[in-house]
Amino acid sequence: MRIFLSGPMGSGKSTVARVLAARLGVRHVDLDAVIADTAGMSIEAIFRARGEAEFRTLERDALSRVLDTPADVVVALGGGTVTDDDARRALLGVGVLITLSAPVEELTARVAAETGRPLLAGRDARRVLEDLLARRGDAYAECHAEVETRGRSPEQVADAVLEVVRRAPIPVPLGKRTYRVDAGAGVRHRLAEEAAKAGEGRAALIATDDHVCDLWARPLSAELSAAGFRCVEVALAPGEEHKTIGSVERLWDAALEGGLDRDSLVVGIGGGVVGDLAGFAASTLLRGVSLGQVPTTLLAMVDSAVGGKTGFDRPQGKNLVGTFHQPRFVLCDVDVLGTLPDAERRAGLAEVVKSAWLDSEEAVTALERDAAALRSGEPEATVRAVRMAVSLKARIVTADEREAGPRRLLNLGHTVGHAIEAAAGYRGIRHGEAVALGMVAAFRVADRMGRKTGAAADRMRRLLEALGLPTDPGPRLDARAATFLASDKKRSAERVRFVVPGDPGCTEVVPITLDDLRAWLLPA
Amino acid sequence: MRIFLSGPMGSGKSTVARVLAARLGVRHVDLDAVIADTAGMSIEAIFRARGEAEFRTLERDALSRVLDTPADVVVALGGGTVTDDDARRALLGVGVLITLSAPVEELTARVAAETGRPLLAGRDARRVLEDLLARRGDAYAECHAEVETRGRSPEQVADAVLEVVRRAPIPVPLGKRTYRVDAGAGVRHRLAEEAAKAGEGRAALIATDDHVCDLWARPLSAELSAAGFRCVEVALAPGEEHKTIGSVERLWDAALEGGLDRDSLVVGIGGGVVGDLAGFAASTLLRGVSLGQVPTTLLAMVDSAVGGKTGFDRPQGKNLVGTFHQPRFVLCDVDVLGTLPDAERRAGLAEVVKSAWLDSEEAVTALERDAAALRSGEPEATVRAVRMAVSLKARIVTADEREAGPRRLLNLGHTVGHAIEAAAGYRGIRHGEAVALGMVAAFRVADRMGRKTGAAADRMRRLLEALGLPTDPGPRLDARAATFLASDKKRSAERVRFVVPGDPGCTEVVPITLDDLRAWLLPA
Repeated sequence: MRIFLSGPMGSGKSTVARVLAARLGVRHVDLDAVIADTAGMSIEAIFRARGEAEFRTLERDALSRVLDTPADVVVALGGGTVTDDDARRALLGVGVLITLSAPVEELTARVAAETGRPLLAGRDARRVLEDLLARRGDAYAECHAEVETRGRSPEQVADAVLEVVRRAPIPVPLGKRTYRVDAGAGVRHRLAEEAAKAGEGRAALIATDDHVCDLWARPLSAELSAAGFRCVEVALAPGEEHKTIGSVERLWDAALEGGLDRDSLVVGIGGGVVGDLAGFAASTLLRGVSLGQVPTTLLAMVDSAVGGKTGFDRPQGKNLVGTFHQPRFVLCDVDVLGTLPDAERRAGLAEVVKSAWLDSEEAVTALERDAAALRSGEPEATVRAVRMAVSLKARIVTADEREAGPRRLLNLGHTVGHAIEAAAGYRGIRHGEAVALGMVAAFRVADRMGRKTGAAADRMRRLLEALGLPTDPGPRLDARAATFLASDKKRSAERVRFVVPGDPGCTEVVPITLDDLRAWLLPA
Repeated sequence: MRIFLSGPMGSGKSTVARVLAARLGVRHVDLDAVIADTAGMSIEAIFRARGEAEFRTLERDALSRVLDTPADVVVALGGGTVTDDDARRALLGVGVLITLSAPVEELTARVAAETGRPLLAGRDARRVLEDLLARRGDAYAECHAEVETRGRSPEQVADAVLEVVRRAPIPVPLGKRTYRVDAGAGVRHRLAEEAAKAGEGRAALIATDDHVCDLWARPLSAELSAAGFRCVEVALAPGEEHKTIGSVERLWDAALEGGLDRDSLVVGIGGGVVGDLAGFAASTLLRGVSLGQVPTTLLAMVDSAVGGKTGFDRPQGKNLVGTFHQPRFVLCDVDVLGTLPDAERRAGLAEVVKSAWLDSEEAVTALERDAAALRSGEPEATVRAVRMAVSLKARIVTADEREAGPRRLLNLGHTVGHAIEAAAGYRGIRHGEAVALGMVAAFRVADRMGRKTGAAADRMRRLLEALGLPTDPGPRLDARAATFLASDKKRSAERVRFVVPGDPGCTEVVPITLDDLRAWLLPA
């Protein structure tokens, strides 16, 4: 276990780190003290003699020595450590990064009496702190949680940190728009707490569908109401055929007639269709209100609920209209999967396989080990799979929020999968099943491109079979599917950006002409 | 005239500045040389001996000495001068700020042979330049124009700079999303040039309405086609009653059936309704494509075309659904106002008065001087008014893109104005006329709050009358209008954020209860 405490000067990093380390019985490191020891002079002296740039170099070196030691540790970082993009991302990946915060007047009071703060030398403390917070706001926000310290003792702050460590939310780092995904059993009951942070207006539109309304949405709406929220519920007709502007209009009208204002919140409780529609409604109501997602299908948990894509279908194709609008929170509660039909749940595993393949050898090996448990819906294996898929998606979304580059990798299996679904009129085949077939087909494309991917293809096929997913796209790759290959909205002119798989962690996007694709995939 | 040349090391700032100054016969300043002279040592030595922070202080001092000298000047800035937010905004306000650019390999080649570049000392030039460009990208993008230098002689670069200086576009600084507003006679013919930069797909949806389609949209569409664009035109039915999701659907369908992809462009050619609908369609098509605005009414030029608000009406009220989606360019061509009915054009002057009042004493005085010319539609006075209003809006949008604070000032006259329009069923009164009445009513509120604004109120009334606008809200402030005061979507709970005017430049937003507002404005 590694806990990193960040925050501006005066936030109490060093004190809380000592308390935490003592409580846990683990090593405690104060990064500034390590730097001063190594350099043989105080931090203040380093700044004066060598300047800030050189200090940051010493800080990077000290941090990588700490990270190279495998033992459990609580680290009080320097105030500016996380402003280095590489350092911050590394910390988010190898431990739990907590930002301690306090109002600027409180910070000013705490540091006023102290000396030895190099950035403060001879300057007005409040002004300096305001500048720091403004410049570092994006970096401080990218963390597992911000913990308020005002009015709390170091012990109470340590309690709050340990609560986050136990829960282990998955951050999606996007500067001040950073949010977290909670995954586990029972996490849906966090709704009222998260909603209170995201919707100051204490009014919420609950978007759901007839399948899950009574089961999950209404009880959660009652929890929100009990917490003082005014809730407006809309249960849409379920199914892809209702992923239309008509459904969006129902959400808009309910929100506007219910008097929601700009400080209100939209919460999507349902599968991918509900989540995409709720997200679009939230992004456009009064030019944008906050959004929370409580996905109730495995597919939505591992795919659509995270990443901010919203939208709906048009007569010309699926998801042709939409926005990017990140949620403020996502609660992936595996308890709700208990009422999901087995075949639905298994279909969601196709996106889990996709994520593992994009991620790494380790992730695929873990899935292979868990395959039987996943197939039968064992909750702990399911939580592990959701966490793996969400963590991968968080990294990709951070790198490329608007799908201008690496995010396109997430379309592995989708170009052919969408064509298969469209050719079937979205009936008789689930999205996940189509993606499974699409991934097998993608390996066929890799093969026709002359890549030596036979062993990897066999391995994926075995994994898909072990999870109860279909693996023979043949019967569905016909002339009708071919006509739908071209209508994928991601095409640009004549070449499509096709996601070509290889060994785990070695997938890439390659421009391929539609003619080649058709020739390689369809019977002559 | 003041020209500031910015850009990374190797972009040719110093050379081009010398050429430009010689050409114009004005003073030439190399900021780094001034700093070195003053400090009595080279820039490299300052960095080494005193560090970057101290250098930036010397740089700020040197720059303010340059800006304190009133004479015409061409200034070669330092590579990092514009990274200081205050400095950059000051430069944008007092002169023309040009960023010279070149691909990183070209920059690397240019600086490879040189010495005395302190940030390069002992490091790999290409890596340093890539880092610089990444960190400074937002700052370099906030300028009047980026001028590419590769393959051009210093004389040719100077020509390109002078073209920008003559045109004097108005930047809306928003980091990498910075765009410019061109205002003048004939600027609509820049469409093909701007579209080529904004729409790499070379396909465009032209959104217009039946009023202006034949007059302005079709000829511009022909210019675009001649430049190699594939254009899809949609002429919507004109008028606020068609500002609906139905009109947006027509735009979506035309774009999708016309095969537009993510690299395509939507161009709005029309008044405020067309612009808001085109903007919404662009922000949602394929999750967002580029947008260009060619406003054809004075109201749209000075108000809705700039700032990125998009949207449409719902049965519950106006503009209740929308997005923030900034355009890539805005072309305000006063030539097109020649066909606008006089009363329409005059109505647009209400928003000009609003802008001047928010801006300053100088702006109001200039309007008073130009009143007769503006009333009769004299083009040069109109261009001055458009430039004033757009410049103010650019400053406000930069400070508060999503209307969380100062942007609310732009609602001066609109709370009451919207109620008056709504009570009239949007018939028989133009938006600008309602805003004129709303501003007079806002002064009445200021008076009832005990502010001494009688002289300012009289002055505004005289200016509105001189421009041919109505100034007596009395007859329209009835019980019916009162019911619409509450439905303004900007209300938050029970208090509305009311914009209270005073002397020019002294307007503020004050929370006022609806009860007070009704009591103060309506007959007992």
